[in-house]
Formats: sequence, structure tokens, C-alpha cells
Amino acid sequence: MQALILAGGSGTRFWPLSRQRRPKQLLPMAGEQSLMQVTVARLRPLVEPESVWVCTTSRLAGAVAQQLPDVPPSQILAEPEGRNTAPAIGWAVSQMPSEVQEGVVAVLPADHFMADEQSFRSVLGSAARIAETEGRIMTLGVSATRPEIGYGYLELGEILNQETGLRKVVRFTEKPDQATAQLFFDSGNYLWNAGIFVFPGQLLLRRLAEYQPEIASGLAALRADPERLAKIYGSLPSISIDHAVMEKLGDLGTLPLDCGWSDLGSWEALWELLDKDAVGNVMRGSGVVIDSKDNLIYADSGTVSLVGVEGLVVVKTADAVLVVPKERSQEVRRIIAELRQTDRTDLL
Amino acid sequence: MQALILAGGSGTRFWPLSRQRRPKQLLPMAGEQSLMQVTVARLRPLVEPESVWVCTTSRLAGAVAQQLPDVPPSQILAEPEGRNTAPAIGWAVSQMPSEVQEGVVAVLPADHFMADEQSFRSVLGSAARIAETEGRIMTLGVSATRPEIGYGYLELGEILNQETGLRKVVRFTEKPDQATAQLFFDSGNYLWNAGIFVFPGQLLLRRLAEYQPEIASGLAALRADPERLAKIYGSLPSISIDHAVMEKLGDLGTLPLDCGWSDLGSWEALWELLDKDAVGNVMRGSGVVIDSKDNLIYADSGTVSLVGVEGLVVVKTADAVLVVPKERSQEVRRIIAELRQTDRTDLL
Repeated sequence: MQALILAGGSGTRFWPLSRQRRPKQLLPMAGEQSLMQVTVARLRPLVEPESVWVCTTSRLAGAVAQQLPDVPPSQILAEPEGRNTAPAIGWAVSQMPSEVQEGVVAVLPADHFMADEQSFRSVLGSAARIAETEGRIMTLGVSATRPEIGYGYLELGEILNQETGLRKVVRFTEKPDQATAQLFFDSGNYLWNAGIFVFPGQLLLRRLAEYQPEIASGLAALRADPERLAKIYGSLPSISIDHAVMEKLGDLGTLPLDCGWSDLGSWEALWELLDKDAVGNVMRGSGVVIDSKDNLIYADSGTVSLVGVEGLVVVKTADAVLVVPKERSQEVRRIIAELRQTDRTDLL
Repeated sequence: MQALILAGGSGTRFWPLSRQRRPKQLLPMAGEQSLMQVTVARLRPLVEPESVWVCTTSRLAGAVAQQLPDVPPSQILAEPEGRNTAPAIGWAVSQMPSEVQEGVVAVLPADHFMADEQSFRSVLGSAARIAETEGRIMTLGVSATRPEIGYGYLELGEILNQETGLRKVVRFTEKPDQATAQLFFDSGNYLWNAGIFVFPGQLLLRRLAEYQPEIASGLAALRADPERLAKIYGSLPSISIDHAVMEKLGDLGTLPLDCGWSDLGSWEALWELLDKDAVGNVMRGSGVVIDSKDNLIYADSGTVSLVGVEGLVVVKTADAVLVVPKERSQEVRRIIAELRQTDRTDLL
């Protein structure tokens, strides 16, 4: 099996720690290694680094190669610009040697967290066997643990195999409202869409040609004339693999993934999964915390000191500080917008 | 008139901005100039810089001289160690040439704020005239604007002069409890002790000899052998001029000072007196403030960004961040204590 890691994100959700040139996947958000390094490491021994491919942007390719010295440099692909996941996956798979394309490819986001890596590998291995033996495109859906409105959902259909738990996906639903999310959650008939796909490489390329002929012909032009990458790639339609292919399939299969998954979508999500002290504080880096509880303190440089505060995210980098209540930490995007508007691009 | 500025404070109340080598009086807390520079500037034209003396510590003397280029370097006196205000004032006045000692000396803390400098000079001038003509030691008491428990109070006695408002001080009271402070405030018979004194220099030295013979003999030994400064000064009793002399006088006079005074005792006190935006935020330095009100933001370096918070003090220096609710900003001392205990002296 090959693994294709999508590492092109320019995440701003962990500002001021994450920056354009140092997005979330390159940061050690939940341990010593970066999320991308952890994503590659947790595949072993199912997929060894020499079978890992990474699709990223030209801006990040150098840092990606540095962080993943065991991944062959020729397998670190730099998009000239981001065109969403369908062109990225299509391009990456089309770059693989044909004998590799005949095998199974797993597509994985570079910036997700999984507490139970053993469970993850077990489900991924099962999905790979199904993909290979049945010639089926698979997605791993995360078992919902709450009526989350921030994720997309996969509606489950027919059970195809009682033993493996293989089921059809009958519908993709974008982020639902609260009432709908509650219905989904209560029904037990939905999984979270984690953006993890497993498929025979050539099958994916055939489906892409079928449903997205424009992308397919662009990729063919690229193979014929790789020098024109910037121009051709930039002209590909910007569309997600979900919309481009997955939602159109009649036989998409899924296995449920129950491994303490988080997409680490906000500082609050990070606080949720990190170890807390007796009064609920999480501290990374140097800090002095007095009479304060349930805070996330992240000192990338220097020391953060709190007295008498509760439920805050406080982040310090060399050049910036963020203070926001945990439950509003998604609103960091409003700061990004303000910085853009006022041309303070050094802080982005 | 000579002015003696007491600038030896090692204030920790504005940590992390104020540090041992950069205490409050050397910082531009409320404008472009440092509090000490403002203290000297607001004396003009009543006292010109060539008639200003500064008593500070050896650690700060270089920075003081740099900030006050118009004050004669020989008038910047460096205590080998802090021994409280009685030795400091006694030593400084005893250093003055005898013809200067025959005139009036005003003692002023280096780190207080006054909104109305004209009123201050007017009262100071009146006090100097009384000190000179009556041979009286004077203190300027601040007209109380609230039942503050954080200050010492002067109890007013007999009215000595209807025209000038001169009254006797009959008692010094240390920081009162809330009920007592309320009584004081309601009575209208108390002023805040601001540590501002005006006296004929030789009179002060005589009173010091009378009430504090140990200090007086130490100062005499110092005059005889200035080389032994460190040893002799270090052996002087550490006592405030209030306890040492002022409280013992039977004829201490006072004039009320109503000039928007603040001793800037905390970040909250600073917020009180600085200009606020429409929703009560005070911002010094670079910041992004979204949906937040009544905060004090002080970015000494870099950018501070807030989303959805209220009533906080947020301070960023290159190496540290402080987050504390305004009304608890006095508790910054608990951080100092913690840093001392854990030997993080680089942050002190």
C-alpha cells in the first residue's frame, strides 16, 4: 500500500503559532513531532516511509522534505498553487509509477490527531484489503462521539459485509445545523467525514476521468509536458475529491473508525485532547499560573503568566499574543481578517 | 528651591514591563517620557533641572543620568543599597552645599502621575513660601476622591491660615480598613499621604538629628569619610521619613493638592487614567481588538490580539506575557514571588 499525505493546508486556526510558512501540519501541536511527522509515523509498519507520498505547496515543500528525511524526495510533490483535493490527489496518483498505481493508495490529511494508533492501522488495513480484493473505493468514517456541527457527515447504507462491518455510503452531508446534527447523532446511522480515502490507484484515476474529464485531460497534458506544470495546474478546476468523485459513486464503501480522532480544528479542540493539570489547565512551554483554571497556555517563546482567569486560550510567540475564551477560539479567523485588511502581512 | 527626586524604587507592580533594571519610574507609563522625566519636567519653571537632585540606587544611576541629561551628574546620588526614605533624604540634603541647605528643598517621588501640572506647581510654590517664611516643614496632601484603602492618610488639625488653606497635620494613619477609609472620606478631614515634602534643608537635618540621632551620626561619619559610603550607608537604620521625622513633628503643615494625582500603584490604576476608546479599551503599542471591552493592552514588543474578552490587563514584552483581570492586577506580586522561588531571575 502507498500513502498519499495531503499537506498543503495553510491553516490559520492556530494563529499566532501557525503561520503561512509554518502551518499546523508542520507544528508539534500535540507532542514532540509535527502532526505531519506523526501522520507518517503512525502508518508504520503498514506503510513504510519509502511508500509515502506527500502533496504540498511549493511554499512548504522545503520544510516538508526537512521534516520527512525518510520519504524519497521525488515523492514530495509541490503544487504550484492550491487547487483543492481533487486535482491534488489526481496529480499525485498520476505521478506514481504504473505498477504502484495498480496497488492500493490511502489518502490521509497531514494534520489530524488520533489517540489510538493501533485501532487506526487495523481499520486502515481492513479498508486496504477490501479496496484491493473488491476493487472498491473506500472512505474511513469516524464514529461520532457528539452532535458536532463543525464536520461533514457520511450517511450509512446497506451492510455489505457483516464480518468486516463494511457498509455503503449513500450520502455526503455538509456541516449540519444543530438540530440535524442531533438527529444524525441519535440515529447512529452517520459517521464523520474525516477525508481519509483508500482505493486502487488506477480505479481512482478512471473515476476521475469519468466524473471530472477536465481534470483528467489537464493531468494528461501535464504528463505530456511536465514543464508546463504551473500553467496547467493553475488552470485545473478547484474542487474537493468529495464533490468531484466520492459523492458521485454508487458503491463507495466505509468502515467505522473509533480511534480518538480529532481534526484539531481550534485551540479549544487542542485543549480537549491534551493532558490537564488538577484544575484543567494545559500548559505548553514556560508559564506561571496562579489561581486560574481550565486555560490553554501555549508559550512558543518566553513565559506566559496568568492570575485569576478561567477558560482562556493564551498563546505567545516571539511577535504576537492571542487571548480568547476557549469557546470562541474559532474566531481567531477574525484576527487574521483584520491583519489582512490592515496589511500586517508579517504576522500572517 | 531645590527639588530632590526619590527614584530608587524597584517597583514590581508593572511587571512584566517593569523590571529590576527598568523600574516604573524609568518607563513611559503614561506618555512619551518616563515618569521620572515627567516629574522633573513638571517642576519647570518653578525648579529648573540644574536645581534638581535625584537619589537613586547604584543599579539605576546610569539610566537615571541618561534620562536626565540636564541634571548635573554630581546631583545624581547613588545609594549603595536601599535604606528607605529617611536615610535617602538625610544623605541627599547633607550632600547639598550649605548655601543650598539654607534654602527650601522639595522631596518628590519619581513615579507619580499628575493630570493638572499647573495646580501642582501652584500648591508646591505656596508650600515653599510657607516653609521659607515660617521655617516650617510641609507636606502636600492629596484631596481624597474615594475611600481608598491602599493609601496612608493625613488627619487635618487646626487651620493656621485661612487665606492659604494651611493646616496642621495631627496624625498619620497607615492604610485603613474599608470602614475606616469610608469614615475618613466622609469626614472631609483627611488627605492622602503622597510622600511630597517641602522644608528648609537645614531644618530637616536638625529634626533628623533630634529624632534619629543614629542616622545623623552616620551621615556625619559619611561627611568625614566619603570613601566608606557602602559600609556606613548600609548600616543606617532602614526607616521611612514619615516614621522617622514627620509623624513626630508637632507643627507639620499641609496644603491640599487637587491635581488628578495617582501613584500608579497597579495596572488598573494606569487604565483608570489613560484615554479609552468607545468601549473602554486602552491600547499602548500594536494590537488587534475584536469584540472586547474595558481592557488594558500594553504591547511593549510585537502585537497583542484579543477576541471576546472583558476587563483584562494583557501585557506583552519580548520575553513575557501577563494576563490578569484588572481588579486583580495588584496580584502581579504573586507572579514575582513565584519567579523568585523558582529562580527565574532573568524575568525579574
